[in-house]
Amino acid sequence: MNTNRQWVLAKRPYGMVTQENFEYQEVPIPEPGEGEVLLRNLYLSFDPTQRGWMEDRESYLPPVAIGEVMRAGSVAQVTQSNHPDFAPGELVQTMGGWQDFVVARPADGFLGLSKIPEGVRPTMPLGVLGVTGMTAYWGLLDLGQPKQGDTVLVSGAAGATGSVAGQIARIKGCRVIGIAGGPEKCSWLQEIAHFDGVIDYKNEDVDQRIGQLCPDKVDVFFDNVGGEILEAALNHLNMNARVVLCGGISGYNATEPQPGPNNLMNLVIMRARMEGFIVIDYMDRAHIAIPELIGWIESGELVDQEDVQEGFENIPGTLNRLFTGQNVGKQILKIADPVES
Amino acid sequence: MNTNRQWVLAKRPYGMVTQENFEYQEVPIPEPGEGEVLLRNLYLSFDPTQRGWMEDRESYLPPVAIGEVMRAGSVAQVTQSNHPDFAPGELVQTMGGWQDFVVARPADGFLGLSKIPEGVRPTMPLGVLGVTGMTAYWGLLDLGQPKQGDTVLVSGAAGATGSVAGQIARIKGCRVIGIAGGPEKCSWLQEIAHFDGVIDYKNEDVDQRIGQLCPDKVDVFFDNVGGEILEAALNHLNMNARVVLCGGISGYNATEPQPGPNNLMNLVIMRARMEGFIVIDYMDRAHIAIPELIGWIESGELVDQEDVQEGFENIPGTLNRLFTGQNVGKQILKIADPVES
Repeated sequence: MNTNRQWVLAKRPYGMVTQENFEYQEVPIPEPGEGEVLLRNLYLSFDPTQRGWMEDRESYLPPVAIGEVMRAGSVAQVTQSNHPDFAPGELVQTMGGWQDFVVARPADGFLGLSKIPEGVRPTMPLGVLGVTGMTAYWGLLDLGQPKQGDTVLVSGAAGATGSVAGQIARIKGCRVIGIAGGPEKCSWLQEIAHFDGVIDYKNEDVDQRIGQLCPDKVDVFFDNVGGEILEAALNHLNMNARVVLCGGISGYNATEPQPGPNNLMNLVIMRARMEGFIVIDYMDRAHIAIPELIGWIESGELVDQEDVQEGFENIPGTLNRLFTGQNVGKQILKIADPVES
Repeated sequence: MNTNRQWVLAKRPYGMVTQENFEYQEVPIPEPGEGEVLLRNLYLSFDPTQRGWMEDRESYLPPVAIGEVMRAGSVAQVTQSNHPDFAPGELVQTMGGWQDFVVARPADGFLGLSKIPEGVRPTMPLGVLGVTGMTAYWGLLDLGQPKQGDTVLVSGAAGATGSVAGQIARIKGCRVIGIAGGPEKCSWLQEIAHFDGVIDYKNEDVDQRIGQLCPDKVDVFFDNVGGEILEAALNHLNMNARVVLCGGISGYNATEPQPGPNNLMNLVIMRARMEGFIVIDYMDRAHIAIPELIGWIESGELVDQEDVQEGFENIPGTLNRLFTGQNVGKQILKIADPVES
């Protein structure tokens, strides 16, 4: 292979993302400069927040430009190195984007390049040991402040972040109720991830079911969804409850701004807090979270679920799996196998 | 006078309160039992939250029952005492309700009875030295956490609580912008209360004006209004902003639940927090706030504005002044003058 396949952003989306928002192109493989490394992407990460990066609006990262390779986290293998710390064949985590090859310059932080620890399955730094796991860990623990015996409600509970957040809450001694769509996800949550209760929002009255499953009300609501599910949860807050705003996937493909919950006054009556966060702010504390997450995985307390698609041509369609609710756990797509040295 | 005039709740309101929601009656003056005192109300307090007490729904206090005297804070004079700590002629603060006479039993807390300190104007314990001042003080300082140089935005800024909250922010070294309705209130805010900027929501584009008057964005939003004004403010949050949910007067007379802000995701992007509170929780810390408030009033840094109506027959109509925006500062109604001993 001597070309670099790429999916670039061709048109900003209106509503759901379609194939037309991206353009396939082949360009020469780039040359690494001094101090740089050439990487070959093996696995791409799909995250609901990527939908926001496609919009032309101010946010926590600049929008992906028209004609620019679509931004995405990846696990990649060093192909060529002009940097003493990286050798060909090594696996790294980076923001490689929707392409085969990328040149990167080792640097700290979210957009940099970091080695994958030995003994870790190569996809884990995209999921439970990456941005996803950090989001769940810090959102729940730092903002949610769960105490033993608390009731923790999680929306998007079968998603990559929600499933980890809920399990951490369970490990911390909380009663955990998850909201997800469809019997398959709900049964996974209950049987495999050992949630204490589940609500199938596609087939049940969420407001009523929260009331039934949370007789002591909700101390922490870890919300990935927003909209009607947030509104329902706000009806069941306990005193001094914490609402962790992790995301609002229900509105990400909306073409008009969606009305917010009509019951924010419940925050007043219950002296409750709603707080947002971006995981980038916690990256310098990854060394605290990662060992604890690895420990829970090794002991079997934390189940790490991935949904791995394949095929470069399937990249754009795989993003939509997050919004049509097809994935259980972390959505990943494999582009290539690592080359054995 | 040997009868006790009362306004009792006759019918729960639908929309704005009208005279028909209350019934006037005359009953015998009650007799204080052992350990009790008989009080004569002099001044009644009017607060937006009283509208909520008229609704038949769970909240931080039980609803006023049909046929029950409408609940309201008051300053009263001891008429007859069976309690060693209270002598006839003394002025006290209590939850006296819409009536001339009330029997009370000395007790701690919000619904109890407490003496008015010497040297304090008798209406002040209803306003700046009462629930109103406490609400402003603790909401701003405990939840808002203003730092010197912060930009603090206040809605309902010419109201009893908003005007005090804004002035405390100014005293703490913040740049303070107030939102109020009409030129009279706005000029009061700028000329008398010394806000750094004002927005007349009845005549200006609030969203645009916040942008103009808050070039460094909003660090603390002290919200008494909710609805569209909250939505506009959320467009201008600074990183790590604090939104203090004090009230939501824009929705208090609504007959249907009002949609919430469509931009809650700004809390995520800006790592911001929205938190509600009820001042009752801070009453045991009044001894911290009151002396500081008195100090600011005596030094002239804090202007204490009251709107004092008169006449027992005007009680129901005076409540609506809060919702039609007629009051500047604390809304009070005088029933009787104290009897000189």
